Amino acid sequence: MAVYTIPARSGLALPVERGRHYKVINTHGYQVVDHWVFNATDINEFMSMEHARVAMNKLVPKPGDSMVTNQRRPIVTLVEDTSPGVHDTLIAACDAYRYRQLGVTSYHENCTENLANALKAIGVPKAETPCPFNLFQNSKYIDGRGFDFRPAASKKGDYVTFRADMDVIVCFSACPHDISPINSGNPTEAHVEVI
Amino acid sequence: MAVYTIPARSGLALPVERGRHYKVINTHGYQVVDHWVFNATDINEFMSMEHARVAMNKLVPKPGDSMVTNQRRPIVTLVEDTSPGVHDTLIAACDAYRYRQLGVTSYHENCTENLANALKAIGVPKAETPCPFNLFQNSKYIDGRGFDFRPAASKKGDYVTFRADMDVIVCFSACPHDISPINSGNPTEAHVEVI
Repeated sequence: MAVYTIPARSGLALPVERGRHYKVINTHGYQVVDHWVFNATDINEFMSMEHARVAMNKLVPKPGDSMVTNQRRPIVTLVEDTSPGVHDTLIAACDAYRYRQLGVTSYHENCTENLANALKAIGVPKAETPCPFNLFQNSKYIDGRGFDFRPAASKKGDYVTFRADMDVIVCFSACPHDISPINSGNPTEAHVEVI
Repeated sequence: MAVYTIPARSGLALPVERGRHYKVINTHGYQVVDHWVFNATDINEFMSMEHARVAMNKLVPKPGDSMVTNQRRPIVTLVEDTSPGVHDTLIAACDAYRYRQLGVTSYHENCTENLANALKAIGVPKAETPCPFNLFQNSKYIDGRGFDFRPAASKKGDYVTFRADMDVIVCFSACPHDISPINSGNPTEAHVEVI
């Protein structure tokens, strides 16, 4: 077993072989972790929220559900979730444009750059930024009212475990958003165990 | 005013200048039209459902709402909708993989290829396939039950009108799906007026 840190406000990319499991741990309990998965042998095939929603016939997976790629193939399967199961598949990764709109005038870390930098660090120079699977993100959509960005419903040490259904590169960003309450105003590190 | 046909089961790509309007007409009333928009001067900037949902704070726009790009800039604004307003931003474009999974063993037209072919026809060799804005698609999501793929709620001649907020390439596919009832089992042509 190997344990990796997703540093606070930063990203991480890891190769994971088919059949192995990885556990994403919400170390401090209130941290959103943006999550992407790419086919290790073809960066143009990746976990796709708009394809996965159809395949699982849900907005958010439950244990046993597979996430599929933009070629409709299972890429990872959610096997365990000790959190209340509140995650998001509807919201784009934060980016420099978003923070400018929110009134930030200086540089702000963001999940879109964290993905690009994490991939670059393992030698992948360029990939799409697919819609992320936002683990622990509590951005409930209420018909007629819109999104309610709330603190995560998870508690310290909650985790989700995925099985890799092909050789993959898994990517994470410990979301640096500190304006709405989605990270309780205090973005922290999270951890990943590859088992 | 110019009128264009989106042929049944096929696609169309058109440049539209900033400030001009285009009207997407559900000529026969029950046809889903997949819709994508690209910045005419940078194909890597495009209308993005996951960014638009946040910007408009809705799953589906109402007249007055702007759709934004993956750089969070307004690209087109919905200015009029004579249909009941039932559209979709959650579901991927159909593709060859989807029809194989649905049991189709021979070639089946699909919206993903229709987009690529329509762009190629106007000299754009390669672009991403963003999640489409599925006009008139009635795929209601019911919590705990999943998606209910129903015939369109629109009637013959219903239309939606958009204003281009920058110079754009607008793309459409008259969805060829003839397995679930989303096109009432009879995919047809639709029309676009550029005003």
